Amino acid sequence: MQQFVERVNALIEALPYIRDFFGKTIVIKYGGSAMLNEGLKNDFAQDIVLLRYVGMNPVIIHGGGAAITEMLQRLNMKTEFIDGHRVTDKATMEVVEMVLVGQVNKKIVTMINQHGGKAVGLCGKDGVLIKAQKHAWENEEQGASANKDLGFVGSVESINADLVHLLDKAHYIPVISPIGVNSKGETFNINADTAASEIAIALKAEKLVLLSDIAGVVDREDNLFHTLHRQEVQELITKKIITGGMLPKVNCCLKALENSVKKTHIIDGRISHALLLEIFTHEGIGTEIIL
Amino acid sequence: MQQFVERVNALIEALPYIRDFFGKTIVIKYGGSAMLNEGLKNDFAQDIVLLRYVGMNPVIIHGGGAAITEMLQRLNMKTEFIDGHRVTDKATMEVVEMVLVGQVNKKIVTMINQHGGKAVGLCGKDGVLIKAQKHAWENEEQGASANKDLGFVGSVESINADLVHLLDKAHYIPVISPIGVNSKGETFNINADTAASEIAIALKAEKLVLLSDIAGVVDREDNLFHTLHRQEVQELITKKIITGGMLPKVNCCLKALENSVKKTHIIDGRISHALLLEIFTHEGIGTEIIL
Amino acid sequence: MQQFVERVNALIEALPYIRDFFGKTIVIKYGGSAMLNEGLKNDFAQDIVLLRYVGMNPVIIHGGGAAITEMLQRLNMKTEFIDGHRVTDKATMEVVEMVLVGQVNKKIVTMINQHGGKAVGLCGKDGVLIKAQKHAWENEEQGASANKDLGFVGSVESINADLVHLLDKAHYIPVISPIGVNSKGETFNINADTAASEIAIALKAEKLVLLSDIAGVVDREDNLFHTLHRQEVQELITKKIITGGMLPKVNCCLKALENSVKKTHIIDGRISHALLLEIFTHEGIGTEIIL
Amino acid sequence: MQQFVERVNALIEALPYIRDFFGKTIVIKYGGSAMLNEGLKNDFAQDIVLLRYVGMNPVIIHGGGAAITEMLQRLNMKTEFIDGHRVTDKATMEVVEMVLVGQVNKKIVTMINQHGGKAVGLCGKDGVLIKAQKHAWENEEQGASANKDLGFVGSVESINADLVHLLDKAHYIPVISPIGVNSKGETFNINADTAASEIAIALKAEKLVLLSDIAGVVDREDNLFHTLHRQEVQELITKKIITGGMLPKVNCCLKALENSVKKTHIIDGRISHALLLEIFTHEGIGTEIIL
Amino acid sequence: MQQFVERVNALIEALPYIRDFFGKTIVIKYGGSAMLNEGLKNDFAQDIVLLRYVGMNPVIIHGGGAAITEMLQRLNMKTEFIDGHRVTDKATMEVVEMVLVGQVNKKIVTMINQHGGKAVGLCGKDGVLIKAQKHAWENEEQGASANKDLGFVGSVESINADLVHLLDKAHYIPVISPIGVNSKGETFNINADTAASEIAIALKAEKLVLLSDIAGVVDREDNLFHTLHRQEVQELITKKIITGGMLPKVNCCLKALENSVKKTHIIDGRISHALLLEIFTHEGIGTEIIL
Amino acid sequence: MQQFVERVNALIEALPYIRDFFGKTIVIKYGGSAMLNEGLKNDFAQDIVLLRYVGMNPVIIHGGGAAITEMLQRLNMKTEFIDGHRVTDKATMEVVEMVLVGQVNKKIVTMINQHGGKAVGLCGKDGVLIKAQKHAWENEEQGASANKDLGFVGSVESINADLVHLLDKAHYIPVISPIGVNSKGETFNINADTAASEIAIALKAEKLVLLSDIAGVVDREDNLFHTLHRQEVQELITKKIITGGMLPKVNCCLKALENSVKKTHIIDGRISHALLLEIFTHEGIGTEIIL
Repeated sequence: MQQFVERVNALIEALPYIRDFFGKTIVIKYGGSAMLNEGLKNDFAQDIVLLRYVGMNPVIIHGGGAAITEMLQRLNMKTEFIDGHRVTDKATMEVVEMVLVGQVNKKIVTMINQHGGKAVGLCGKDGVLIKAQKHAWENEEQGASANKDLGFVGSVESINADLVHLLDKAHYIPVISPIGVNSKGETFNINADTAASEIAIALKAEKLVLLSDIAGVVDREDNLFHTLHRQEVQELITKKIITGGMLPKVNCCLKALENSVKKTHIIDGRISHALLLEIFTHEGIGTEIIL
Repeated sequence: MQQFVERVNALIEALPYIRDFFGKTIVIKYGGSAMLNEGLKNDFAQDIVLLRYVGMNPVIIHGGGAAITEMLQRLNMKTEFIDGHRVTDKATMEVVEMVLVGQVNKKIVTMINQHGGKAVGLCGKDGVLIKAQKHAWENEEQGASANKDLGFVGSVESINADLVHLLDKAHYIPVISPIGVNSKGETFNINADTAASEIAIALKAEKLVLLSDIAGVVDREDNLFHTLHRQEVQELITKKIITGGMLPKVNCCLKALENSVKKTHIIDGRISHALLLEIFTHEGIGTEIIL
Repeated sequence: MQQFVERVNALIEALPYIRDFFGKTIVIKYGGSAMLNEGLKNDFAQDIVLLRYVGMNPVIIHGGGAAITEMLQRLNMKTEFIDGHRVTDKATMEVVEMVLVGQVNKKIVTMINQHGGKAVGLCGKDGVLIKAQKHAWENEEQGASANKDLGFVGSVESINADLVHLLDKAHYIPVISPIGVNSKGETFNINADTAASEIAIALKAEKLVLLSDIAGVVDREDNLFHTLHRQEVQELITKKIITGGMLPKVNCCLKALENSVKKTHIIDGRISHALLLEIFTHEGIGTEIIL
Repeated sequence: MQQFVERVNALIEALPYIRDFFGKTIVIKYGGSAMLNEGLKNDFAQDIVLLRYVGMNPVIIHGGGAAITEMLQRLNMKTEFIDGHRVTDKATMEVVEMVLVGQVNKKIVTMINQHGGKAVGLCGKDGVLIKAQKHAWENEEQGASANKDLGFVGSVESINADLVHLLDKAHYIPVISPIGVNSKGETFNINADTAASEIAIALKAEKLVLLSDIAGVVDREDNLFHTLHRQEVQELITKKIITGGMLPKVNCCLKALENSVKKTHIIDGRISHALLLEIFTHEGIGTEIIL
Repeated sequence: MQQFVERVNALIEALPYIRDFFGKTIVIKYGGSAMLNEGLKNDFAQDIVLLRYVGMNPVIIHGGGAAITEMLQRLNMKTEFIDGHRVTDKATMEVVEMVLVGQVNKKIVTMINQHGGKAVGLCGKDGVLIKAQKHAWENEEQGASANKDLGFVGSVESINADLVHLLDKAHYIPVISPIGVNSKGETFNINADTAASEIAIALKAEKLVLLSDIAGVVDREDNLFHTLHRQEVQELITKKIITGGMLPKVNCCLKALENSVKKTHIIDGRISHALLLEIFTHEGIGTEIIL
Repeated sequence: MQQFVERVNALIEALPYIRDFFGKTIVIKYGGSAMLNEGLKNDFAQDIVLLRYVGMNPVIIHGGGAAITEMLQRLNMKTEFIDGHRVTDKATMEVVEMVLVGQVNKKIVTMINQHGGKAVGLCGKDGVLIKAQKHAWENEEQGASANKDLGFVGSVESINADLVHLLDKAHYIPVISPIGVNSKGETFNINADTAASEIAIALKAEKLVLLSDIAGVVDREDNLFHTLHRQEVQELITKKIITGGMLPKVNCCLKALENSVKKTHIIDGRISHALLLEIFTHEGIGTEIIL
């Protein structure tokens, strides 16, 4: 009985959060451990179904680097990384697409549907959802990647959100592989964080949540920042406290914020139900970045 | 942190119930202690708002005997009960209506709205929601009340659910005083359990929940029955285990079940969040009566 | 037969008015004799039902001072007026609400429904229709009331017209008690003329009609002004021809006109079918105030 | 003032009729004097606009024999009648169509629009509203017409009411010329009473009203029958009291009644506002035929 | 088989045009030979039905001078032309209206319906579609017509496109006679090219197509201009290459272009399927005039 | 010019077919050469886009055996066929799914979108579109496959067509991989012909078209049957004229016909624009099987 009382109290404590996010769109980049560990996968699917039932519109953009690497190995295809970007020739691009769309995406869809959701898997080609172009490295990103042709690594030219709105309105949960297409029908591999940020902007989302394998933004002593304003983020970049793989994630958040997304979150996907813990508690478990 | 994990686990445990009752109508008779104690009132309002946000359509029918009695006393009006029915002459009827509609109903509406719901108070006169007639005692109900004119004590002739459907669809929470009206415009006092049962039938509700000041249906040693089938209920009536004030409640449940309501519940309104405890747990806290 | 010909001629003469007001919202403050005399009550209900059937959206805000005073007397509660405002402590406020919402409102609703309308009674708490605040007397209103705490006498902070629009669209006739609520859930007594004016503004009404117990605006020889422009009204105020109880009514009209209500009317509720006489004839029976 | 009071009283007396016919379809055969006399034409247009504004869906089917005859004379074309049917060869049919559709219909449309209605003229060819076939005389109709080819005199094969429903729903008033078309695209002249009856059936109309140049059904002393049941009508036919031109009108009524039209009326179009007099009074001015 | 392959290839070649004009409104002035020759009439009807089925909204405005002249002769009525305008007294106007609305229009409607379309004939009186006024000749149009009363020759005051939108949305094909009406209910004869241009503007049409009995705009050697920009048109007018009957047609096109119609076309109605040839081929068969 | 006239004539000849199939659903099994040859792939995509633009709802179910076999070889995985069924263990199933969903499907989607369609790729997991179960061989299908576990070869348990209807209504073109899922979330490989047949039934399709690499149903001299009735088909089976790979295709057709699909077609996908040739000509190019 005590356990039931606690359950009910928990529901009541969640009420203010449910109320505030009712009818709002939450775009989630799903990747890393949360996508590899069986228990965490299950937890994530439950979280998504719950968000949908309590009135939010969750939209998922997923990664899949590990599965891609594994398949490339099985096919004896070499893969090279420059500055963290996978050099993606046509043959590699085909494997990337096949694995993301035909394997990783469908596993997520099925997991969500097993828990009672109505997930639909899409990639950027469906309804020309993600119009892409070859990624052009800007000056500030100078590095090896700017001097070398990375092949079919793309950036987002435009998002056509019609299909996602149609599905949202009919209570489906879109699960999107970050594959883009250009006007010639060529396929491009797009960074999942970037795709999530652009889709959040196109959907005028309330929140962008990036699941990753770190606690969030931390200082030099590994203390977590719970909340950061844009200003503070820029200082941390200047001071080289935000560096490496965290830098592009933080930039995705800033771009989203500058384009009308209300709040962005970088959270630790290694924690069970990380998504609910971030959304349904005041302090959250990761770093919230706001304007 | 531990507390947040528990909150989230509780949400996840509630998910199957949320899923099953999504979009379903739950008619609740609200009365007794749950309507008198400040803490319980607050808990009830939260419960209702939560049910609405997680996708159910709660519809409330309330009682108010204590407030009526108090007002009659302040007005020096005598009130007589025969077999549990208040003898209701025209002057008394006016007080009953005024207190239920103008005082009790609006307090419930305000309490729910304070918690973020969108409640609208109605009585049976609004949109001629409850068409009533003078109550005629049937043979089996022989007693003093059958031989005496109880005045404006009414029974339900028909329910016009259009207005409730309109409000439900627009996400309002209807709070209904059990006042009926006949074709001459006369006002009738209707038993709140009965009104709730009839409204549940008219709305083709999933559940009818009667909040009362007892644990549920109990045996002679006061052990609670968790689940009873119609058949068992009738045996308990024959054996005089179900008697007194429980008898009409049980009959309301049976009538609802025989007219397509899926499940009915008699629960203990004296327990905090009794409503959520009944709906979001497998065993529940009261007695569930099913076909 | 002659009588039928006259009836039909009357209908034909009414046609231009029906045509002009088709689909328009008419907000009516209902009070005074028209609410006390049985015949006039019946006439008013017929007028409202007719307006609805010929395509207008009538919205009623009612008073009820006489019934309140009577109930306060029955309860041996004293009531004090300062500058025409009832000093309203918490206990008084409860009686005011109970009488307006639970007695006066429902009588109007039933009367209209008896004539074939579909009336629904509301107060400012339903769907938080009238957000209120404690009335603050402005400088120009200096008088005894500005120096004394009148208790729960409120002014309108905002009107949430969603619920009224929903009901209008479904052909219901909203009947509204001028009771407001603040964010703490406290109840406020609002002047019915003021509430009507604010609701007319929120609904972008075509007309605001104030029924009262006087012929309209009159000059010193009691000659009725049929039409007054804002400018003229202000001169009459300056010349102290408009004074006393007429002053706040006229101010309600001016505020409505300044906020996009097309026409306002102060008419004599003591005349049978005053409402139809004002709306369906060129000259009308009261005073029309326009920009 | 007295006149205004009478106008308002008339409106109130009309209320029960307005209420009862709200949202109902009234199909009116318009012809004879009511279509020739300027004053009556104007009255008729007002009546129709009023019916529309008070919530009914009037649908007009018009005749036009006089105008046809006049045009045939101007064109020096002979016209022959057999048993009251105009022998209609191809050349005559063209004139009939041209006059009904291009002259008579548009005058009615314009007259209604002048009074504030939104009339749209149609003939049976528009949207293939009236599918026609060559009229085959049945045995009981034996007479000269059964033995002679009357040319393009048609009977209704089927009514496609989609277009009329579309216009009704958008508050237009359909004015229909009784011209039919067969699957080969040939044009047929259809008796207006018959067309009105068939359209009333297809629209599941509440009422069919035939305007004619007689008082209604009368006995041998010219006393008007106010109400006749089917049974009585058949006796009057057997007794040869209903004969001649009244016979087909009465048969149109009976057919409509047998196919779910609620009431039918044969009224005197020579009386001003005959339509309103019939619809808005208890006794009416013509003969009502019911099941 | 070869023939089927060609059919299919033709469909595939038409695809880009179908795609580009899907959902677009095409206003067509129909007149001249295309309306007189049986084969061309049939071809035109097929073209219209095809346009409708492949997703366009064709709207037809028709002429009918030949039929009018014929009927005037049969009626022994003289007709006079000044500067190409028919002097239209009241009696003539009645014949014009009767012939256009009651004869020409219905033939077009029936022809389209025979091919499986759902045509509905209208004139400017229906739903007050074309509000007209007496035509006032402007200075630049100096000529005999400016000095003489041409009677009921009208120009367009305003277009009320509601009815056309309603029909379009329900997949009907509006066929409109260029008859206008003023506020007094008087009828006006409007040039069909002008009416088509004004209706195209009111409907924000994609295309205005004028069918005529010439190849298009030609130079002095009768060579056809395939495409002309506004600038070029004005030069051709200055150089007196565009003169006579072509001048008002070209002006209709320019006015349409200046009021947001995308493209205008003057094509040769004497060619079979001229309409499809213009819409479904790159070069077209007539003259395209664009901004 | 001659070529344009032919194009237009071809459109006109296609009109009766466009008219008849307007708004109808056409389910197409796409596979074989039509999916391998670049030119044929392009033709097929054009055909689909054209069908959509002229008002039909095409739904595509595709195969992909060749691509699967190629990928299995690249992965050094052996594949075994028994009675034409691929033995599909878990590892093979993963490759099948990955290739169909992540490679073949997306190529079709992109090809259609390149021609201006709005294709969306789905598999049976999306919105649980295809509920599958392990295929149980029935007695009549006795053969090696009935005695051996073929692994994840599935049959259709139920089709949930909601998602397809949603997409159809919004003018998307669904492209479906024949992958099913059971309630445990396991993946099943379903024969594409069978999946197409079941989806046609669930959608109440007008037509089921199976593209294959043969001319259609032929007799022993390889003469094509243009039309076959169920009865005839059954005789051909009895006479062993329909045998081998044609047998299951024919059975798919019969099952569809018995479940309300109007017509079924087996056509030669090796012919350019085979689909249009079958739909837009009277005789068609393959075998039509009807009840």
